Amino acid sequence: MNNREIEEKMVEVVKDYYEKEKLNDTLAYREASEENYKAVSNLKFPKEGRSIDEMIDLLNRDVFPYRVVGDHPRDFAFIPAPVEEISKIGDVLTTLYNPNAAGWFSAPVIASIENLLIDFLCEKVGFGKESGGTFVSGGSLSNLTAIVAARDDKLEMDNINKGVAYISNQAHHSVNKGLRIVGIPDSRIRSVKTDENLKMIPEELEKLILEDRKNGLIPFMVIGSAGTTNTGTIDPLFDLAQVCQRQNVWFHVDGAFGGSLLLSDTYSKRLRGIELANSVTWDAHKWLFQTYTCAMILVRDKKTLLKSFSDNPSYLKDAHSEDQIESWDLGPELSRPALSVKLWLTLQTLGLDEVERRIDHSVKIGEKAESELRKYDHWQIVTPGEQAILTFRYYSDKKTEEELDTINTEISHGIVSSGFAVILTTEIKGMKVLRMCTISPKTTNEDIEMVVEKLNECVKSLKL
Amino acid sequence: MNNREIEEKMVEVVKDYYEKEKLNDTLAYREASEENYKAVSNLKFPKEGRSIDEMIDLLNRDVFPYRVVGDHPRDFAFIPAPVEEISKIGDVLTTLYNPNAAGWFSAPVIASIENLLIDFLCEKVGFGKESGGTFVSGGSLSNLTAIVAARDDKLEMDNINKGVAYISNQAHHSVNKGLRIVGIPDSRIRSVKTDENLKMIPEELEKLILEDRKNGLIPFMVIGSAGTTNTGTIDPLFDLAQVCQRQNVWFHVDGAFGGSLLLSDTYSKRLRGIELANSVTWDAHKWLFQTYTCAMILVRDKKTLLKSFSDNPSYLKDAHSEDQIESWDLGPELSRPALSVKLWLTLQTLGLDEVERRIDHSVKIGEKAESELRKYDHWQIVTPGEQAILTFRYYSDKKTEEELDTINTEISHGIVSSGFAVILTTEIKGMKVLRMCTISPKTTNEDIEMVVEKLNECVKSLKL
Repeated sequence: MNNREIEEKMVEVVKDYYEKEKLNDTLAYREASEENYKAVSNLKFPKEGRSIDEMIDLLNRDVFPYRVVGDHPRDFAFIPAPVEEISKIGDVLTTLYNPNAAGWFSAPVIASIENLLIDFLCEKVGFGKESGGTFVSGGSLSNLTAIVAARDDKLEMDNINKGVAYISNQAHHSVNKGLRIVGIPDSRIRSVKTDENLKMIPEELEKLILEDRKNGLIPFMVIGSAGTTNTGTIDPLFDLAQVCQRQNVWFHVDGAFGGSLLLSDTYSKRLRGIELANSVTWDAHKWLFQTYTCAMILVRDKKTLLKSFSDNPSYLKDAHSEDQIESWDLGPELSRPALSVKLWLTLQTLGLDEVERRIDHSVKIGEKAESELRKYDHWQIVTPGEQAILTFRYYSDKKTEEELDTINTEISHGIVSSGFAVILTTEIKGMKVLRMCTISPKTTNEDIEMVVEKLNECVKSLKL
Repeated sequence: MNNREIEEKMVEVVKDYYEKEKLNDTLAYREASEENYKAVSNLKFPKEGRSIDEMIDLLNRDVFPYRVVGDHPRDFAFIPAPVEEISKIGDVLTTLYNPNAAGWFSAPVIASIENLLIDFLCEKVGFGKESGGTFVSGGSLSNLTAIVAARDDKLEMDNINKGVAYISNQAHHSVNKGLRIVGIPDSRIRSVKTDENLKMIPEELEKLILEDRKNGLIPFMVIGSAGTTNTGTIDPLFDLAQVCQRQNVWFHVDGAFGGSLLLSDTYSKRLRGIELANSVTWDAHKWLFQTYTCAMILVRDKKTLLKSFSDNPSYLKDAHSEDQIESWDLGPELSRPALSVKLWLTLQTLGLDEVERRIDHSVKIGEKAESELRKYDHWQIVTPGEQAILTFRYYSDKKTEEELDTINTEISHGIVSSGFAVILTTEIKGMKVLRMCTISPKTTNEDIEMVVEKLNECVKSLKL
């Protein structure tokens, strides 16, 4: 195929998406059938190429439609991906030119854009002049990058088997995974108690640290959360930071989800104390409306990343040589796409006021969902919707806890299989609960009212 | 902006690329000027959004053109990215639908495509029924994934500080980085001697292993290369595998670059022994013509990945539950784009014969470059072009080694700044040499002849 034909196909693909798929985008979830799987598994990789039209048709027909539609106004599962379409334009540009965004030689102006973004985000965190960071493939990798930096800052390599890390019992499982990768097994990961609001208790943390130190272990890292995945709960960051400073322990804040609150004048104060962290994880493919993926690791002192990831000792001498620092010296990856350009394009063209409006909107939609559910006695709010994540469950004092778990699971199945909305369950304080993450800027009050109505119908149909 | 406007902009972006940028694509490298940097740095992130047309113009004018053009027929630097345009169509589809490719619930048919590809690639390696793997963000992460699996298979967590890894003195620096991330410092990374052809010497390896074991250390991993980044050299994989089996050490093969030789009937035999490895890294954004990024980790026994990365112990009991294994249980990442779809589309529509033809072509172009340079006395071949990577240097017995280093650096500067071709230097056996990686399917014999002519001109202009 020549470039002219490629161009035509690509234009067709774009038009088909916006004129067919996007317009028919009424379902938040479509379940795949045996037929769809077979369409794919029947096609061995052939010696002679197949028709590109047929293959694109197949992808449009049997593959891509079957998914959780992350930018659907009624996808409330996981952390949805409520993508701004402008991000897709940035992504398409990135695909077309396909620069290798690692390095000042390969793609110099993109490296410069990346620096501008990292500086901007560090400023939002409240970090000072020594701060820095880089783009990474996702929140898991960002957390891992921070964990490596923390370990190398606080432990000697031969002391890894004495290092202890502290996380909340609500932490995302990628945090445990990251710790295991760097050599900290579960037996040296302390799960710190949380209070009735699921916030890590600073006094409990400090007690554990002192105890471990008494036992000859080396506490090296605390991981707090600026919005847990489960409930959006923000740990008492300021108080945790005080404990960490007192105890000389690295303080990492997982803001993969909630970091974006920093772009809201109204809600950024909820993250007070994040400016005292040593490192922050922030995903732009979550609450900054980017396509998969776009994540950042930000650190108070960029020398800590260089110490772990750079082979170039000259960097460590001269902390002011920002301009020449290669991104591979700040993290575990090397060649990678220009993850930053789509975010840059989005912020430049939406403007920060609009981004703020969207974040504020998400919080209000979470509150709306909460108040809508409170109208009915059979819905019990488990954790409030104040950070755009709400958990709740069907409740009746005539049912056992076991029965309630089953009922709530069935409600989730009912609403998901209808495709009208995606609401999954999670476990909180031993209960199976329903969970809604309301970060789509497209979700309206009417959506919420319809969803609650649908939930009520699900309950009714169960004939409890 | 509504979807109609987004569609129009995106179509415009595609057309502009193919009708302007792509047609003017005569330079392999364009250096950015102060003006380009300023165009970007002058634009603070605004409260009110800027015009999207202006921002796209700026990206097309000041940002993207300035790069190493990875798919240019005369980009010979690093491992180039000689992207097949069909991969870009797959990427655009992935961007538009933006599925979260992690997980059978989020994107079931894509998960199925991923399995089909992993199975196909494992079969090419020569792995058996227990094999598996996953897509990861790049070669560095793939190597890291293998290193974690190796460590967890051969060491106890409390023995990490006794673990020793063995790499060739030609190994890619991402390997050292990966080892440090999992807790193996440079002091326990042995750099095994290579022979005059830069291949790791199995006898030297075994000697080091025995020595370390005698000293109470625990040899756990050998990393061989199926095509080094520097010279394309393939280690004696079969013999290394024998040593590893004898010594009960994990054998990882870094085939990020050279793994693709497995798709050539003619050249796959050069990788004999790779089928005995425990794990293999393979990047499709290198010699399989994909956009950034598309990389795979493949393992002989998928249970080894599950042991390191899964929280779900039931997987470990039932190795036959392939269908339900989530990709996040096989590697360090979670949410991610559908990296597999573009590769699937490329293989289906090009066909395996065409892929093979392209790989064979690259090898021949490397050989052509070698024979073309051999026509001139002032060019000295340092390592042969047989694996599509050739190193050579200007040589004259009237110059000192130091002078030769300077001259060869100047030749590289000369050709890069002309934009006609990108040829960088690397260091081999203490010498500064020129290096050409010839994996672009678009590179012709005429390109090579022109490049050698240009190199000769560079030499002449230096008036040596």
